[in-house]
Amino acid sequence: MSQQWNRIIIGIDPGTNVMGYGLLGIQGKEPSLIVMGVLKLSKLDDHYMRLHRIFERVTGLVEQYLPDEMAIEAPFFGKNVQSMLKLGRAQGVAIAAALGRQVPITEYEPRKIKMAITGNGAASKEQVAAMLQRILRLQPQQMPDLLDATDALAVALCHFYESSKPISSQGPSSWKKFIAQHPDRVKR
Amino acid sequence: MSQQWNRIIIGIDPGTNVMGYGLLGIQGKEPSLIVMGVLKLSKLDDHYMRLHRIFERVTGLVEQYLPDEMAIEAPFFGKNVQSMLKLGRAQGVAIAAALGRQVPITEYEPRKIKMAITGNGAASKEQVAAMLQRILRLQPQQMPDLLDATDALAVALCHFYESSKPISSQGPSSWKKFIAQHPDRVKR
Repeated sequence: MSQQWNRIIIGIDPGTNVMGYGLLGIQGKEPSLIVMGVLKLSKLDDHYMRLHRIFERVTGLVEQYLPDEMAIEAPFFGKNVQSMLKLGRAQGVAIAAALGRQVPITEYEPRKIKMAITGNGAASKEQVAAMLQRILRLQPQQMPDLLDATDALAVALCHFYESSKPISSQGPSSWKKFIAQHPDRVKR
Repeated sequence: MSQQWNRIIIGIDPGTNVMGYGLLGIQGKEPSLIVMGVLKLSKLDDHYMRLHRIFERVTGLVEQYLPDEMAIEAPFFGKNVQSMLKLGRAQGVAIAAALGRQVPITEYEPRKIKMAITGNGAASKEQVAAMLQRILRLQPQQMPDLLDATDALAVALCHFYESSKPISSQGPSSWKKFIAQHPDRVKR
């Protein structure tokens, strides 16, 4: 089945143990699932090997599906500096794969994504997955085993919703906007 | 002047304000400066634009000089989670540029680099630059204005020294080794 999409959004949930990805095709104003999945990295001992796999997979997805935009799930705060450095690297290689192909990137905080999909910023991953199933009319067999895949699809759908809003009502949808709106949360 | 190097090492000091780079050519057992410089990013407001510039520059250097190895300066600890996330992203895009060309990467802590170059893990950037000038016989006009360039050259030279040592005497020269040797400093 070959589909004519007016727009394709790739959603990425980067992590050094599991990376989730989800591609959404927009036809008219209707979003549909193209594909979603995960890249399992926990069996690889080598940190660079993991980063390489993330880079290769994201590059491959970008080359195969030619998305118009990328949306990534990006927590602004984390438990400790070491986990944030690792997360930053995983995000960095995924971002590099998009930048290398001139794909614009927007990032969303987990809370913002959950709010956009379920109306509740503290929703569980299962609740997010269930809402995605309903909104995108997914069959049970289309639902993934790992919720990193639905999380990635959720950030793509969140980006679709956010970018469809009139500009004035858009919330902080990028690092820059976030910083502009929360100068007190930035340590310079 | 066309030189035949048996080995080329690229050193990178990634940062989101300034990225330093330095390329070292090895002829016999003698290291020499090929080129060093900085990429100034502070005038760019957009975080992705900065990451894109880092990716482009590192990719360009890798394509132009075809280094055999990359060494990056990588602090394992930082002030706060937000700065570490940003640093991780800057490292991530630089790493992706090397991974995309199959260039192996080794990372070194700042303290280790200073120790390797000056014999003092707490040496200043000026002291590191002065030692590099002596070791590599650099003319005053070859010395850069910004010490991010000499810092990057220092990590390349540190990698040359470390990789020339017998295996058994090598210190923690990668994240993996560091973690293996300091399991107590990792929060899982």
